[in-house]
Amino acid sequence: MNADEESRLARVALTWLAEPGTRVVHQLVERHGPVATLDLLLDGGSPDGWLHSTVAARSAVGDARAVAAEALERAERLGARLVTPDDDEWPTRVGGLTTLRLPDVTRRVDGETAPPLCFWVRGSWPLGEALERSVAVVGARAATGYGQHVATELGYGLAERDWTVVSGGAFGIDAAAHRGALTAGGLTVAVLACGVDRPYPMGNTALFDRIADTGLLVSEWPPGAEPLRPRFLIRNRVIAGGTLGTVVVEASARSGATQTARRAIYTGRVAMVVPGPVTSAMSVGAHELLREFPKARLVTGVAHVLEEVGRIGADLAPLSRGPQRPTDALDDDARSLLEALPRRGAMGVDRLAGRAGVDVRTALRKLSLLEELSMVVRRDDGYALAPPATPRRGT
Amino acid sequence: MNADEESRLARVALTWLAEPGTRVVHQLVERHGPVATLDLLLDGGSPDGWLHSTVAARSAVGDARAVAAEALERAERLGARLVTPDDDEWPTRVGGLTTLRLPDVTRRVDGETAPPLCFWVRGSWPLGEALERSVAVVGARAATGYGQHVATELGYGLAERDWTVVSGGAFGIDAAAHRGALTAGGLTVAVLACGVDRPYPMGNTALFDRIADTGLLVSEWPPGAEPLRPRFLIRNRVIAGGTLGTVVVEASARSGATQTARRAIYTGRVAMVVPGPVTSAMSVGAHELLREFPKARLVTGVAHVLEEVGRIGADLAPLSRGPQRPTDALDDDARSLLEALPRRGAMGVDRLAGRAGVDVRTALRKLSLLEELSMVVRRDDGYALAPPATPRRGT
Repeated sequence: MNADEESRLARVALTWLAEPGTRVVHQLVERHGPVATLDLLLDGGSPDGWLHSTVAARSAVGDARAVAAEALERAERLGARLVTPDDDEWPTRVGGLTTLRLPDVTRRVDGETAPPLCFWVRGSWPLGEALERSVAVVGARAATGYGQHVATELGYGLAERDWTVVSGGAFGIDAAAHRGALTAGGLTVAVLACGVDRPYPMGNTALFDRIADTGLLVSEWPPGAEPLRPRFLIRNRVIAGGTLGTVVVEASARSGATQTARRAIYTGRVAMVVPGPVTSAMSVGAHELLREFPKARLVTGVAHVLEEVGRIGADLAPLSRGPQRPTDALDDDARSLLEALPRRGAMGVDRLAGRAGVDVRTALRKLSLLEELSMVVRRDDGYALAPPATPRRGT
Repeated sequence: MNADEESRLARVALTWLAEPGTRVVHQLVERHGPVATLDLLLDGGSPDGWLHSTVAARSAVGDARAVAAEALERAERLGARLVTPDDDEWPTRVGGLTTLRLPDVTRRVDGETAPPLCFWVRGSWPLGEALERSVAVVGARAATGYGQHVATELGYGLAERDWTVVSGGAFGIDAAAHRGALTAGGLTVAVLACGVDRPYPMGNTALFDRIADTGLLVSEWPPGAEPLRPRFLIRNRVIAGGTLGTVVVEASARSGATQTARRAIYTGRVAMVVPGPVTSAMSVGAHELLREFPKARLVTGVAHVLEEVGRIGADLAPLSRGPQRPTDALDDDARSLLEALPRRGAMGVDRLAGRAGVDVRTALRKLSLLEELSMVVRRDDGYALAPPATPRRGT
């Protein structure tokens, strides 16, 4: 095992020994690296009493390194991959969670809001790129028809404008937001509180399959991990901190969605809330957020959401996308054609040329070039965007 | 005609010569009194060109003093009365309009927001007392069932807690708020943009009759005045400035109700907004208010409204009500009985005693005392609150 592999294994082992987000573990890793931190904890050197007990309890039922190695093998069989801060596709924005401190913490889980040590990912998009221009849409499981309609419209509208829709994969608002994005042929990311091989709830299996096919299933927990209750709260910090903003569509009083919004606010992200009828129990939490947090913005549709996150997105895009993009080398016609291609599926040359505003002869020439650059693929039914390259792993 | 009568007549004449709210007229009256101001204007001494023209145009169709005298006679025949700042029942809170300046004024009517010179009133409650603990509930004419439900609940809940409900008497939200207050046996005030003898709209005639019976119909315009379009905007400043806060229930984009809320905000009153479904055109204006004005408070029911205005009410009540109240001299039993009496209609002694938590013998004794003090009246169907004394007129 080389140093890189050892480091990755240590991150997985650490996430198994203590739940993700554990602040002291993250601090140790920042200071000493994952391998030394793992050695320290396994040698009984935890700086905190509770962590010492937790590590001992876990170690009694299994060997952390062996568990981690097994998880990595299992992931490989599944076609899932581990992403760590050493990888190019690491979503750096989650680093903002370092500063997240929730007020009035009574449960440990609300205090342990450190950035993730690693992610398990299913789907071909590079995780960091997928989250770059992303908005979370979250809300009640027991959503009303009104809420589902609004969430679907938001998911669709955001995806249509090339924003990634992030949500939690739950029934109700989450599922509606994912579906809206999928309908628009857009990119959607489900951040789970369990293994990416057994997304919860089961009833959304078909939806998860569609998401894995064109978007991403993401989790901090290894394949096989169960969706334990506190894990949803731990997961919520990633939805809040990994996106530019969080929209709450419907939420009952003190619901998980309002917890995600609070995490967004205290991480300095944009928290947005869709109001609803005051007669609806499913909007009580949404209205509470608007009353409690002057920073929470009332939004009534995708235009308002883009008004809030668009500025940030525009600022960030050149920074993080800038020099790496191969499209920078393309001329206007090629770029127009590339942008005219549907995000999913193929399109015939005639229609594509018309959409791009390029004559058909030029279109054919430029498409050949793009094909040579492996940016588009020719198919029986026209041209399509090439699937993203397998993410390079950093050293 | 004595000096007092002359002064009252001058206020009526001035309101006829220039629409209520005209800033320069109000300033002249403050400085020189209404009689001297009327003389000045009628002698062609208006400080502003446009006012000079307006006075000349009005004077061409009638003699201001004669018109005013006729209005006063007509009001007396109708059982309506004129209330001026010289009267004890003058609602002093409207004086706050002196400071009202709306930004981005393009129409004259938005700039002329001075306090009223006088009010025409139908109903027996002293106007100032009625408005002391008052909240405005306003909204769309083309209200939805949702909006009407919420407005009725608010009107009922506020009235039940002895708050006066103020609105404009229009179809939709206004009517629902008035009806809610009436159903609770509470006090409701309709501030009109036309004469109190011909409340507009006609379709609400039965409602207006009920309001005049137990509450108040109020207007700055003399009996017979027509509800011209700009008068609604002029009227709205009184609804905003005469109450402690304004609740907007449903409002389409740039509606009259949002104009009232803006006037409340810029007069330093509490502006409250009930959200609704983002899919409803009738809530677009409400949501716009919440997005535009950080000071506008989202409220979802009467508890939130009381949270906003309750503090102010509690602060003000002892100041203005304090020493004058004859109830201060009553013992606990008598006061409990008085408070147990329905605001409207009578109640039998047994029920009343039970409600007040006083035994029937004591109740009978205390009710006799209250009757002697002219605070309750005995009727065939039990005891009832005595109608308020005819307001004293100041000197």
